[in-house]
Amino acid sequence: MTTDRPLRELLCTLLRLFYAKDWVGGTGGGISGVRDDGMLLVAPTGVHKELVEPRDLFVVDPKTCGVVEPSENAALKPSECSPIFAAIVRARGAGSVVHSHALSTVLAADITTDDALPIRSLEMLKGIRGLANTDVHEVPLIDNTPREAELTGAVEAACRDRRFASAHAILVRDHGAYIWGADVWEAKRHAEVYHFLFEAVRLRKER
Amino acid sequence: MTTDRPLRELLCTLLRLFYAKDWVGGTGGGISGVRDDGMLLVAPTGVHKELVEPRDLFVVDPKTCGVVEPSENAALKPSECSPIFAAIVRARGAGSVVHSHALSTVLAADITTDDALPIRSLEMLKGIRGLANTDVHEVPLIDNTPREAELTGAVEAACRDRRFASAHAILVRDHGAYIWGADVWEAKRHAEVYHFLFEAVRLRKER
Amino acid sequence: MTTDRPLRELLCTLLRLFYAKDWVGGTGGGISGVRDDGMLLVAPTGVHKELVEPRDLFVVDPKTCGVVEPSENAALKPSECSPIFAAIVRARGAGSVVHSHALSTVLAADITTDDALPIRSLEMLKGIRGLANTDVHEVPLIDNTPREAELTGAVEAACRDRRFASAHAILVRDHGAYIWGADVWEAKRHAEVYHFLFEAVRLRKER
Amino acid sequence: MTTDRPLRELLCTLLRLFYAKDWVGGTGGGISGVRDDGMLLVAPTGVHKELVEPRDLFVVDPKTCGVVEPSENAALKPSECSPIFAAIVRARGAGSVVHSHALSTVLAADITTDDALPIRSLEMLKGIRGLANTDVHEVPLIDNTPREAELTGAVEAACRDRRFASAHAILVRDHGAYIWGADVWEAKRHAEVYHFLFEAVRLRKER
Repeated sequence: MTTDRPLRELLCTLLRLFYAKDWVGGTGGGISGVRDDGMLLVAPTGVHKELVEPRDLFVVDPKTCGVVEPSENAALKPSECSPIFAAIVRARGAGSVVHSHALSTVLAADITTDDALPIRSLEMLKGIRGLANTDVHEVPLIDNTPREAELTGAVEAACRDRRFASAHAILVRDHGAYIWGADVWEAKRHAEVYHFLFEAVRLRKER
Repeated sequence: MTTDRPLRELLCTLLRLFYAKDWVGGTGGGISGVRDDGMLLVAPTGVHKELVEPRDLFVVDPKTCGVVEPSENAALKPSECSPIFAAIVRARGAGSVVHSHALSTVLAADITTDDALPIRSLEMLKGIRGLANTDVHEVPLIDNTPREAELTGAVEAACRDRRFASAHAILVRDHGAYIWGADVWEAKRHAEVYHFLFEAVRLRKER
Repeated sequence: MTTDRPLRELLCTLLRLFYAKDWVGGTGGGISGVRDDGMLLVAPTGVHKELVEPRDLFVVDPKTCGVVEPSENAALKPSECSPIFAAIVRARGAGSVVHSHALSTVLAADITTDDALPIRSLEMLKGIRGLANTDVHEVPLIDNTPREAELTGAVEAACRDRRFASAHAILVRDHGAYIWGADVWEAKRHAEVYHFLFEAVRLRKER
Repeated sequence: MTTDRPLRELLCTLLRLFYAKDWVGGTGGGISGVRDDGMLLVAPTGVHKELVEPRDLFVVDPKTCGVVEPSENAALKPSECSPIFAAIVRARGAGSVVHSHALSTVLAADITTDDALPIRSLEMLKGIRGLANTDVHEVPLIDNTPREAELTGAVEAACRDRRFASAHAILVRDHGAYIWGADVWEAKRHAEVYHFLFEAVRLRKER
């Protein structure tokens, strides 16, 4: 399939950008994108994300989580967060999901033992689709699990929860965040905005 | 009009620099520059600022805020802060205005509930035109509004306020800062200096 | 010997990356890698690490610490931490050892006067081979000495200590860290993960 | 004079590096280097330091502070810190002097009202020529003045002070630091080391 080449290249370019921002260091984190045919491109697991090339990606069916087209590199396996990427695509119609391992996501989640992190009084809230800067924006916050795929149930519950209808991110305590958008560029914008919001909330709290 | 090409390229180069400094992430913030004919070049709204190209810019009349020359890309709209850029050009004769969404601007504005942030005892004050390092420099600080254009009145009042005659920046609480200079290079210098000053004031306060 | 050229180039590329991350500034820190024949490639001492070139490296026998092939530049001497690199290769079968002078390593070691730094409740622990995110991971912490080679005994003791069987790093108080892996890429991953863990532990402590 | 071309290029390369490190932002700070004939190359004042080109530099006689060769650009004036650069060259035989406007220098100087900042218990002290990691290293700390040239007397006094015989830096309160070495590369190494030390001392103090 030649038509997904630009999407593959864009995902790899963004992995290098996110690596430079310290969001996907130590081989953690990643990004996925939905093709025109509804199939999901995901990076391999356990690789240095800044070095991923277009041909390394897997094609996964978000309905079944099955691999429909393997990486050209037979030694690779698809990202362990593929089931979560797929769940968010199904539940929210996301066109792209970012998984961040940024330290700012962990420290923001530390602020509260509640199941949501409220964010308020920041113009940057407008950077999330549908929000006003006067909103109190509740980001769902779930507990970490020993295996990443075990997060899927809690991710699906957060996606269904009416309190979080406007959220485009889920924080995972001690772990990171899933951030999505209607397409790759909106996911990138949302990722930049949420990282700003998380850091702002933390630094305001510590004041 | 071919003669504004160097200015268009310079504005795009600085957007990439400012993106790398985390001043215009999440599609927020921007920069504008006045052409030789007095018309103002502004970036489109809602786009990733590090990707803006010279032909994407709009030409706006700072007197009327009307678009006199659209972007080549018909899908784009001019930056929402165009009325504020125009107000500062009219009130202060600025040749270029930067709009920063840096976290340091938000955290600096958090320091006080007053309508000005005083800055003192820093050599870097000399980096603002007309200031000595012995000055207590008052930066006007206004409240945020639901829509960016609604800031215009408060921006104009701050520009007229005699207390702020030496200021080349306006802080907007929970939002960011407008920073200007006589030309693009002075606006860049002022932007670098004010971001340093804001961060210095915050870190000294938290000590 | 031509076959070690790719390893030499990789080590120099990573030195430039680590310099950009502020891990090997001021000529401190470094990286070493084991060749197919078991000999160790080490950088020269006292040079700007981001400028090291493949031909500048020394070949050291990790059993004897003797130089078996000098740098092409006769003015250079091998890194002072060569005995420690060699000790970790012998004791742990490491294929590559990173020596970091990052400020985060010094500040993490400041947290405790104990002989180990415990790290817990972080998904990033999974980035260290063999660890689960539910582990309490004990990183050995030794005292600094006037001369770097004098650390060797304490490094060897830490490598033998059963409490630290899963550790792939040793913190040196007031100094930095040694971080290793089975090969250069695992050492890079471990280095990124440990720097994240050290900074997380410090910022959580200061909360 | 053609033989100083490599030195001119090196100084400009380092200005770009120092700009990326936020040491010479807002047109502040700089670097100077002594030519083989003992004359001092200095950057122009009031320019964006990352844009300085080899032909922009001035040649100054460190004995008289007089310009012996102007910049090719007649609109430029030599750096205001030229008298201080010259004083350090005369008093310490420095081959290169860096002037940093890094925020870390200002915050480190804030720690004490004394005339020296003591630094101890850091391996990075070894990065300063002649120091051991067991030394308590006293960095002279002088008060700022309205005009930069007025610092010269205090700089000369600090250079003469026996307490500071091993120092290769002078902190200027509310302002920045002068850091030097026997040649440009040693000045670069000392600059990297001192910025690390200043930040370490501050963060340890705030703990």
